[in-house]
Amino acid sequence: MKIQNYREVKGTEVVPGVVMRVVAGPAEGAPTFVMRVFEIEPGSSTPHHAHGWEHEMFVVEGKGVLKSGNTERPVEKGDAITVLPGEQHSVLNSGKDLLTVICVVPLVDGKMPGMIVSD
Amino acid sequence: MKIQNYREVKGTEVVPGVVMRVVAGPAEGAPTFVMRVFEIEPGSSTPHHAHGWEHEMFVVEGKGVLKSGNTERPVEKGDAITVLPGEQHSVLNSGKDLLTVICVVPLVDGKMPGMIVSD
Repeated sequence: MKIQNYREVKGTEVVPGVVMRVVAGPAEGAPTFVMRVFEIEPGSSTPHHAHGWEHEMFVVEGKGVLKSGNTERPVEKGDAITVLPGEQHSVLNSGKDLLTVICVVPLVDGKMPGMIVSD
Repeated sequence: MKIQNYREVKGTEVVPGVVMRVVAGPAEGAPTFVMRVFEIEPGSSTPHHAHGWEHEMFVVEGKGVLKSGNTERPVEKGDAITVLPGEQHSVLNSGKDLLTVICVVPLVDGKMPGMIVSD
Protein backbone atom coordinates (compact mmCIF):
# COMPACT_ATOMS: atom_id res chain seq x y z
CA MET A 1 0.00 0.00 0.00
CA LYS A 2 1.26 3.44 -0.83
CA ILE A 3 -0.18 6.86 0.00
CA GLN A 4 1.18 10.03 -1.54
CA ASN A 5 -0.29 13.48 -1.98
CA TYR A 6 -0.27 14.33 -5.64
CA ARG A 7 1.35 17.70 -4.96
CA GLU A 8 4.41 15.86 -3.61
CA VAL A 9 4.84 13.73 -6.73
CA LYS A 10 7.34 15.04 -9.25
CA GLY A 11 5.62 16.43 -12.31
CA THR A 12 6.57 16.39 -15.98
CA GLU A 13 5.56 19.18 -18.36
CA VAL A 14 4.21 17.07 -21.22
CA VAL A 15 3.33 20.06 -23.38
CA PRO A 16 3.61 23.76 -22.50
CA GLY A 17 1.24 24.57 -19.63
CA VAL A 18 0.33 20.93 -18.93
CA VAL A 19 2.00 19.07 -16.06
CA MET A 20 1.45 15.35 -15.47
CA ARG A 21 2.04 13.61 -12.14
CA VAL A 22 1.88 9.80 -12.10
CA VAL A 23 0.37 9.09 -8.68
CA ALA A 24 -0.58 5.38 -8.71
CA GLY A 25 0.52 2.64 -11.08
CA PRO A 26 3.29 0.20 -11.91
CA ALA A 27 5.88 2.04 -9.79
CA GLU A 28 3.67 1.22 -6.80
CA GLY A 29 3.16 -2.37 -8.03
CA ALA A 30 -0.28 -1.99 -9.62
CA PRO A 31 -0.63 -4.56 -12.42
CA THR A 32 -3.52 -3.26 -14.52
CA PHE A 33 -3.80 0.51 -14.82
CA VAL A 34 -2.23 3.83 -13.90
CA MET A 35 -3.64 7.02 -12.39
CA ARG A 36 -2.21 10.37 -13.41
CA VAL A 37 -3.08 13.90 -12.28
CA PHE A 38 -2.91 16.59 -14.98
CA GLU A 39 -2.63 20.27 -14.08
CA ILE A 40 -3.54 22.46 -17.03
CA GLU A 41 -2.85 26.20 -16.95
CA PRO A 42 -5.53 28.64 -18.10
CA GLY A 43 -5.53 28.74 -21.91
CA SER A 44 -3.46 25.58 -22.23
CA SER A 45 -4.66 22.26 -23.64
CA THR A 46 -3.61 18.67 -23.98
CA PRO A 47 -2.97 17.75 -27.64
CA HIS A 48 -5.94 16.58 -29.68
CA HIS A 49 -5.27 12.89 -30.18
CA ALA A 50 -6.64 9.36 -30.13
CA HIS A 51 -5.30 5.96 -29.07
CA GLY A 52 -6.39 2.38 -28.70
CA TRP A 53 -7.31 2.48 -25.01
CA GLU A 54 -9.86 4.23 -22.88
CA HIS A 55 -9.50 7.21 -20.57
CA GLU A 56 -11.50 7.58 -17.40
CA MET A 57 -11.17 11.13 -16.12
CA PHE A 58 -12.45 13.14 -13.16
CA VAL A 59 -12.32 16.92 -12.83
CA VAL A 60 -10.95 17.72 -9.36
CA GLU A 61 -10.80 21.51 -9.73
CA GLY A 62 -11.43 24.12 -12.39
CA LYS A 63 -13.37 24.49 -15.62
CA GLY A 64 -12.56 23.42 -19.13
CA VAL A 65 -13.70 22.24 -22.50
CA LEU A 66 -13.49 18.64 -23.67
CA LYS A 67 -13.06 18.45 -27.42
CA SER A 68 -13.75 15.30 -29.40
CA GLY A 69 -13.45 15.64 -33.15
CA ASN A 70 -15.61 18.66 -33.99
CA THR A 71 -17.65 18.62 -30.79
CA GLU A 72 -16.88 20.70 -27.70
CA ARG A 73 -18.48 20.19 -24.31
CA PRO A 74 -17.90 22.11 -21.08
CA VAL A 75 -16.56 20.22 -18.08
CA GLU A 76 -16.22 21.32 -14.48
CA LYS A 77 -15.44 20.11 -10.97
CA GLY A 78 -17.08 16.77 -10.23
CA ASP A 79 -17.50 15.69 -13.85
CA ALA A 80 -16.52 12.12 -14.72
CA ILE A 81 -15.54 11.54 -18.34
CA THR A 82 -15.26 8.31 -20.29
CA VAL A 83 -13.30 8.50 -23.55
CA LEU A 84 -13.51 5.24 -25.47
CA PRO A 85 -10.68 3.62 -27.44
CA GLY A 86 -10.21 5.41 -30.75
CA GLU A 87 -12.07 8.62 -29.82
CA GLN A 88 -10.27 11.86 -30.55
CA HIS A 89 -10.02 14.03 -27.45
CA SER A 90 -8.31 16.95 -25.80
CA VAL A 91 -8.88 19.01 -22.66
CA LEU A 92 -8.59 22.81 -22.69
CA ASN A 93 -8.54 24.99 -19.59
CA SER A 94 -11.15 27.64 -20.42
CA GLY A 95 -11.22 29.10 -16.91
CA LYS A 96 -9.08 31.51 -14.91
CA ASP A 97 -7.80 28.99 -12.37
CA LEU A 98 -5.77 25.80 -12.67
CA LEU A 99 -7.69 22.88 -14.18
CA THR A 100 -6.85 19.68 -12.29
CA VAL A 101 -7.97 16.42 -13.86
CA ILE A 102 -7.43 12.79 -12.87
CA CYS A 103 -6.87 10.56 -15.89
CA VAL A 104 -6.68 6.77 -15.58
CA VAL A 105 -5.41 4.59 -18.44
CA PRO A 106 -4.73 0.86 -18.72
CA LEU A 107 -1.17 -0.40 -18.77
CA VAL A 108 0.07 -1.62 -22.14
CA ASP A 109 2.60 -4.45 -21.84
CA GLY A 110 2.84 -3.61 -18.14
CA LYS A 111 3.83 0.01 -18.75
CA MET A 112 2.12 3.36 -18.93
CA PRO A 113 1.46 4.00 -22.62
CA GLY A 114 2.86 7.15 -24.21
CA MET A 115 0.57 10.14 -23.97
CA ILE A 116 0.22 10.37 -27.72
CA VAL A 117 0.26 7.43 -30.11
CA SER A 118 -1.42 8.94 -33.13
CA ASP A 119 -2.60 12.43 -34.00
CA MET B 1 -17.53 9.85 -24.96
CA LYS B 2 -19.69 10.43 -21.94
CA ILE B 3 -19.61 13.23 -19.37
CA GLN B 4 -21.62 13.10 -16.18
CA ASN B 5 -21.30 14.87 -12.87
CA TYR B 6 -20.93 12.29 -10.14
CA ARG B 7 -23.65 13.96 -8.07
CA GLU B 8 -26.15 13.19 -10.86
CA VAL B 9 -25.30 9.48 -10.94
CA LYS B 10 -27.61 7.26 -8.90
CA GLY B 11 -25.90 6.00 -5.77
CA THR B 12 -26.15 2.71 -3.93
CA GLU B 13 -25.68 2.46 -0.17
CA VAL B 14 -23.24 -0.46 -0.05
CA VAL B 15 -23.03 -0.48 3.75
CA PRO B 16 -24.63 1.96 6.21
CA GLY B 17 -23.17 5.44 5.69
CA VAL B 18 -21.28 4.53 2.50
CA VAL B 19 -22.74 5.42 -0.91
CA MET B 20 -21.14 4.25 -4.17
CA ARG B 21 -21.72 5.93 -7.54
CA VAL B 22 -20.35 4.17 -10.64
CA VAL B 23 -19.31 7.09 -12.84
CA ALA B 24 -17.23 5.56 -15.67
CA GLY B 25 -16.95 1.96 -16.77
CA PRO B 26 -18.59 -0.80 -18.77
CA ALA B 27 -21.97 0.98 -18.91
CA GLU B 28 -20.16 3.73 -20.86
CA GLY B 29 -18.32 1.15 -22.99
CA ALA B 30 -14.97 1.15 -21.18
CA PRO B 31 -13.32 -2.26 -21.67
CA THR B 32 -10.68 -2.40 -18.93
CA PHE B 33 -11.59 -0.74 -15.65
CA VAL B 34 -14.28 1.13 -13.76
CA MET B 35 -14.27 4.36 -11.74
CA ARG B 36 -16.50 4.70 -8.71
CA VAL B 37 -17.02 7.61 -6.31
CA PHE B 38 -17.57 6.68 -2.66
CA GLU B 39 -19.17 9.10 -0.22
CA ILE B 40 -18.51 8.07 3.36
CA GLU B 41 -20.39 9.72 6.24
CA PRO B 42 -18.46 10.85 9.34
CA GLY B 43 -17.83 7.81 11.54
CA SER B 44 -18.68 5.33 8.78
CA SER B 45 -16.25 2.97 7.07
CA THR B 46 -15.99 0.60 4.16
CA PRO B 47 -15.65 -3.02 5.37
CA HIS B 48 -12.14 -4.30 6.06
CA HIS B 49 -11.50 -6.72 3.22
CA ALA B 50 -9.09 -7.97 0.56
CA HIS B 51 -9.41 -9.18 -3.03
CA GLY B 52 -7.32 -10.27 -5.98
CA TRP B 53 -7.14 -6.92 -7.77
CA GLU B 54 -5.70 -3.51 -7.07
CA HIS B 55 -7.42 -0.30 -6.01
CA GLU B 56 -6.25 3.10 -7.12
CA MET B 57 -7.92 5.76 -5.02
CA PHE B 58 -7.91 9.53 -4.79
CA VAL B 59 -9.30 11.61 -1.93
CA VAL B 60 -11.45 14.38 -3.44
CA GLU B 61 -12.74 15.88 -0.19
CA GLY B 62 -12.51 15.18 3.51
CA LYS B 63 -10.28 13.37 5.97
CA GLY B 64 -10.07 9.73 6.89
CA VAL B 65 -8.02 6.78 8.02
CA LEU B 66 -6.86 4.03 5.71
CA LYS B 67 -6.52 0.75 7.57
CA SER B 68 -4.51 -2.17 6.23
CA GLY B 69 -4.26 -5.15 8.56
CA ASN B 70 -3.07 -3.67 11.86
CA THR B 71 -1.71 -0.42 10.39
CA GLU B 72 -3.63 2.84 10.22
CA ARG B 73 -2.61 5.86 8.19
CA PRO B 74 -4.33 9.23 7.85
CA VAL B 75 -5.50 10.32 4.42
CA GLU B 76 -6.80 13.67 3.25
CA LYS B 77 -7.77 15.67 0.18
CA GLY B 78 -5.30 15.19 -2.65
CA ASP B 79 -3.91 11.86 -1.46
CA ALA B 80 -3.52 9.11 -4.04
CA ILE B 81 -3.61 5.57 -2.66
CA THR B 82 -2.47 2.31 -4.25
CA VAL B 83 -3.80 -0.87 -2.63
CA LEU B 84 -2.20 -3.96 -4.17
CA PRO B 85 -3.96 -7.25 -4.89
CA GLY B 86 -4.40 -9.23 -1.67
CA GLU B 87 -3.87 -6.30 0.72
CA GLN B 88 -6.46 -5.91 3.47
CA HIS B 89 -7.92 -2.41 3.48
CA SER B 90 -10.76 -0.19 4.60
CA VAL B 91 -11.43 3.54 4.63
CA LEU B 92 -12.93 5.27 7.68
CA ASN B 93 -14.22 8.83 7.72
CA SER B 94 -12.51 10.28 10.80
CA GLY B 95 -13.54 13.87 10.05
CA LYS B 96 -16.65 15.98 10.51
CA ASP B 97 -17.48 16.40 6.82
CA LEU B 98 -18.28 13.96 4.05
CA LEU B 99 -15.29 11.92 2.84
CA THR B 100 -15.37 11.63 -0.96
CA VAL B 101 -13.00 9.13 -2.54
CA ILE B 102 -12.52 7.99 -6.12
CA CYS B 103 -11.79 4.27 -6.36
CA VAL B 104 -10.79 2.62 -9.64
CA VAL B 105 -10.77 -1.17 -10.04
CA PRO B 106 -10.14 -3.42 -13.04
CA LEU B 107 -13.06 -5.22 -14.65
CA VAL B 108 -13.21 -8.96 -13.99
CA ASP B 109 -14.70 -10.92 -16.90
CA GLY B 110 -15.87 -7.59 -18.31
CA LYS B 111 -17.84 -6.63 -15.21
CA MET B 112 -17.29 -4.59 -12.08
CA PRO B 113 -16.25 -7.07 -9.39
CA GLY B 114 -18.29 -7.26 -6.20
CA MET B 115 -17.15 -4.89 -3.50
CA ILE B 116 -16.19 -7.73 -1.19
CA VAL B 117 -14.89 -11.11 -2.28
CA SER B 118 -13.25 -12.32 0.91
CA ASP B 119 -13.01 -10.98 4.47
